Amino acid sequence: MIQIEIITIGDELLIGQVVDTNSVWMAQELNKAGFDVCYKTTVGDNEPDILGAFENALSRVSVVLVTGGIGPTKDDITKKTLCKFFDTRLVFDEATLETVREVISGYNKALNELTKSQAFVPENCTVIQNKMGTAPITWFEKDGKIVVSMPGVPYEMKWAMCNEIIPRLQTVFRSRGAIRHRTFWVKNYSESQLADRLETFENELPEPVKLAYLPTSGLIRLRLTGKNVDGDFLDKIMELHAGKLSDLLSTDIVSAEDADLEIILDNLLKEKGLTLGLAESCTGGKLAALFTAIPGCSAYFKGGVVSYSNEAKVSLLGVNPEDIQQYGAVSQTVVEQMVSGAGKIFGADCAIAVSGIAGPDGGTPEKPVGTVWIAVSLHNRLLSQHFLFSKSRESNILRACNNGIRMLLELIREA
Amino acid sequence: MIQIEIITIGDELLIGQVVDTNSVWMAQELNKAGFDVCYKTTVGDNEPDILGAFENALSRVSVVLVTGGIGPTKDDITKKTLCKFFDTRLVFDEATLETVREVISGYNKALNELTKSQAFVPENCTVIQNKMGTAPITWFEKDGKIVVSMPGVPYEMKWAMCNEIIPRLQTVFRSRGAIRHRTFWVKNYSESQLADRLETFENELPEPVKLAYLPTSGLIRLRLTGKNVDGDFLDKIMELHAGKLSDLLSTDIVSAEDADLEIILDNLLKEKGLTLGLAESCTGGKLAALFTAIPGCSAYFKGGVVSYSNEAKVSLLGVNPEDIQQYGAVSQTVVEQMVSGAGKIFGADCAIAVSGIAGPDGGTPEKPVGTVWIAVSLHNRLLSQHFLFSKSRESNILRACNNGIRMLLELIREA
Repeated sequence: MIQIEIITIGDELLIGQVVDTNSVWMAQELNKAGFDVCYKTTVGDNEPDILGAFENALSRVSVVLVTGGIGPTKDDITKKTLCKFFDTRLVFDEATLETVREVISGYNKALNELTKSQAFVPENCTVIQNKMGTAPITWFEKDGKIVVSMPGVPYEMKWAMCNEIIPRLQTVFRSRGAIRHRTFWVKNYSESQLADRLETFENELPEPVKLAYLPTSGLIRLRLTGKNVDGDFLDKIMELHAGKLSDLLSTDIVSAEDADLEIILDNLLKEKGLTLGLAESCTGGKLAALFTAIPGCSAYFKGGVVSYSNEAKVSLLGVNPEDIQQYGAVSQTVVEQMVSGAGKIFGADCAIAVSGIAGPDGGTPEKPVGTVWIAVSLHNRLLSQHFLFSKSRESNILRACNNGIRMLLELIREA
Repeated sequence: MIQIEIITIGDELLIGQVVDTNSVWMAQELNKAGFDVCYKTTVGDNEPDILGAFENALSRVSVVLVTGGIGPTKDDITKKTLCKFFDTRLVFDEATLETVREVISGYNKALNELTKSQAFVPENCTVIQNKMGTAPITWFEKDGKIVVSMPGVPYEMKWAMCNEIIPRLQTVFRSRGAIRHRTFWVKNYSESQLADRLETFENELPEPVKLAYLPTSGLIRLRLTGKNVDGDFLDKIMELHAGKLSDLLSTDIVSAEDADLEIILDNLLKEKGLTLGLAESCTGGKLAALFTAIPGCSAYFKGGVVSYSNEAKVSLLGVNPEDIQQYGAVSQTVVEQMVSGAGKIFGADCAIAVSGIAGPDGGTPEKPVGTVWIAVSLHNRLLSQHFLFSKSRESNILRACNNGIRMLLELIREA
């Protein structure tokens, strides 16, 4: 199995200004292509730290992929640091200037001196032309190991990885091993209860297969990972053990899709042509925000009411004020009236409603912080469930969202 | 300046299954507290790689903060690897068991053997009780350097950082000098325009004071940071230069409070005793979720409508369907009717309404992706503004939220 380290360079990554989604995408693609990302390192735009990171990386892996720090401005020093590390110098490259000219003309910009400087490249490397930007990709080999420097701009990086870097790595490491993942969303267990349940299964897993527990608010994501030189063999044992796991957990497995729950529901709603409306109290708009973060959700998402006050529950969702009085806003009857109201006012096929006490205040002995009622509906079918989550506001909101989505997923599938 | 390395542990971070937002949040908080994050390293759940990462980190920084890999299940090996690294063993700790019991009872779960095993802690460390979960925080010191292991679950990590780790680090490193920050929210500038405007100011800053630009969606956060051994001297020069900056930017400064905009508005609404209602189209519930993430927001937050469909704009918010027909849903008249509707249906003193094209689809030549109309109201006063943000859905949603909050802040202050 070829081991890879990703090094991301940039001060903005170290002061919490930018979330590093590049390396997440790279890891996914490299995994699919059968490479093993073993380390990720982030350093700032300064020479000693970058040199140190290169040295560390080459001491432990065969391939180092470096993103960022190759723009034309003064603060970008990756290129000259690479020259220092590989003991080489910058030379002018006509082919690179040609590419830079083409790229610049595509953006309707003029070529200035700063941009021209991108055509100076390290002498001792293979230059790969970047068709999406002005910074060339550079590929170094030393003592049988490979270092590739590429842009940090996401769409340039993605183009370079897909079109140049991964295909070239595959050519170099033709005899690479295979890697397979299988993921399961599991309900009804805490992490330790599930580990108890799966103890024998886990102990009996063969060497190349590992089980990991990824607790997500309100549910658990289980991941089986197999690594082996023989892909066909791996496929067989992964199939076998994924099957065993499915049998063991049976209906507690909510989904075997490797995606966030809202994406799984998004796909299902689109596939079935169903529309969705929401009525949120304690989740306060978070559930709506999860769906509306997905491009194209307007195909099914009609809207939601964040009925934080009791008046809003009555006037907008049609909840009976006497029931709020008698049973409280966090009760089965109120949440069921909320879900019916949401379906009705949005003219939606499906609805999710949540009412609970997110905390930290507002709890009572009978209804402590973490008490949540969730209802889901599909046409005239309705399902509601009581939960007692935790003392953390953030966690209660996320658990309620995940469980609401999970309940609707199940209701639609059972229909 | 104390240098810190963040080590995140978990296979899920190396196969691209999870986006690491923990280290982003940690870097922000550590920065505010005057610490310098110099490296981030991610390794999988395997002993040699974790040991190697500890060794590397301690060779280059004073403080190593480790997240993840301390759950009770077999795949979590950080605790036993820490024992190996610090040449110590696990011992049973009664106080930790007591905390685990409390936490478990808060979650209404039974204590099983696996969970009990969390009470085994390394002998040679300070154990910090985790009030949010079952995995204790462990604090090691060696040769004047510090290694802290904490949970990777975001809300547990955040609790641990804010309540225990940062305060303790500040106590340990108190004698290293004083740090002062002054933060300003600035509107009407792009980052490079603002850098142009402040060039002279920045060049004239004395040695211990530095200016940082923190572009936040739709606004810019400016941070003046001063570091000096003499706190009184520092207070004086910070006061002087913060004053200069205020004079320079004048009314383009939205706020000099060092908090997220929704927290600033939350405080203002509570102080003035005003209530809030929302009408969201393209922000899709995100604005409501920002407020409802704040404990105690029910004091002023009445509710919101996520009117994703035109029908919902008409039936729930009372928007005139002919105006939607004639001017489009993303228009001044529609967003103004939305804000009036939100004020009315929630019986709220203030309201924010947003209608826009978040993208990636749905744009037209006249109204490209990124076109957003925002309206805010306070009693019978109403203000609306047109924006053209970006091509990124995520960025458009966040920019719209921040500008909506900013506009209402200003409307209330001017009243």
